[in-house]
Amino acid sequence: MNTTIAPQQLVEQLTWRYATKQFDPARKISDRDWAALEQALILSPSSCGLQPWHFIVVNDPAVRARLKPASWGQSQITDAARLVVLASKTNVNESDVDALMRRQVEVRGGTVEALKGYRDMIMGAIVKGMDAPARLAWAKNQTFIALGYLLAAAAALGIDACPMEGFEPAKYDEILGLTAKGLTASVVATLGYRAATDKNAGLAKVRFPRGHVLTEI
Amino acid sequence: MNTTIAPQQLVEQLTWRYATKQFDPARKISDRDWAALEQALILSPSSCGLQPWHFIVVNDPAVRARLKPASWGQSQITDAARLVVLASKTNVNESDVDALMRRQVEVRGGTVEALKGYRDMIMGAIVKGMDAPARLAWAKNQTFIALGYLLAAAAALGIDACPMEGFEPAKYDEILGLTAKGLTASVVATLGYRAATDKNAGLAKVRFPRGHVLTEI
Repeated sequence: MNTTIAPQQLVEQLTWRYATKQFDPARKISDRDWAALEQALILSPSSCGLQPWHFIVVNDPAVRARLKPASWGQSQITDAARLVVLASKTNVNESDVDALMRRQVEVRGGTVEALKGYRDMIMGAIVKGMDAPARLAWAKNQTFIALGYLLAAAAALGIDACPMEGFEPAKYDEILGLTAKGLTASVVATLGYRAATDKNAGLAKVRFPRGHVLTEI
Repeated sequence: MNTTIAPQQLVEQLTWRYATKQFDPARKISDRDWAALEQALILSPSSCGLQPWHFIVVNDPAVRARLKPASWGQSQITDAARLVVLASKTNVNESDVDALMRRQVEVRGGTVEALKGYRDMIMGAIVKGMDAPARLAWAKNQTFIALGYLLAAAAALGIDACPMEGFEPAKYDEILGLTAKGLTASVVATLGYRAATDKNAGLAKVRFPRGHVLTEI
């Protein structure tokens, strides 16, 4: 079965999306749509396939209420149907690489020993090849791939979203207990459906002209 | 017209994609598909809408040949139908913010003066609120959103892609003349169609189980 999507259809959906400022708090995302958005997160590509992230889906209204003041009081934190905190691993290390090797053997068969070359490559490029701040920066970059993947997926499905960097990561880490788990909050995505009163929905999208952001050589 | 995409169709396409190691050098991307992929780049969301990036589409085979040794000799650099270098602004500053203000007035009307509150917010959060390394890290994060957006779009259209971090940014910056333009190469995307001989196409995707990367609270 051909499940590819027509280019014009995709562009329509990417044009339709906008950073939703007001969500309709009464409208939920269907289980079917949400399962697809979770899959977008889980299937996101990452360098070396290391997936140096963890996604915290915050459903508990009490926790959302605590996150709101740590997010400049923005209403999306409590009003959106879903709130995802995209966290990054603060210290990607040998055990993460070994977990990936074991997972690959689980999924594809073979032995961990046969993956030695692949393991050595990742250890050299990421774990030994970077100091701790560079490894965290690398993990954050990967986490933003997952954000892009999630936002494109939401747009494709016709689900509104607002990516949010306006929050205090240290407070998020404390409220969600991330530090002890070797994680830090990198970016937030709220998802749901726009409120009828969100005036931003009707505004033209502001993007620089093609020539300003793209060069062909 | 409803142009939303069914969740199962999207998941099929995201599952279909893989990091293509061998492209069919004879197969090109249609103009219609490529225009949609360019739109995915141009429409990518970014914090404050600042778009702190530049996309260099390298078509010149001579330039591609020079980039290949700076990319661990990987064949995708010369064989893929398209090569995009996603570059980030190294010093996002006041003039970038002003360019966005002018663009917003162009697109939506109004005056730059009326945008003072928005301008002050961006200046405070990004330009004055971060030192130079933090601003570059921030710009790189945004650039990885665009990468995720591009990769999801390519998967949706049934176009193969390989995101690549295995290259020497300093050499890319030199070969492409990026430094003088206040840019640095952050990540590379090669796009086209898989070669029939690429054994990676048939391998099961290796992702950690849901519970390993996602927690609901």
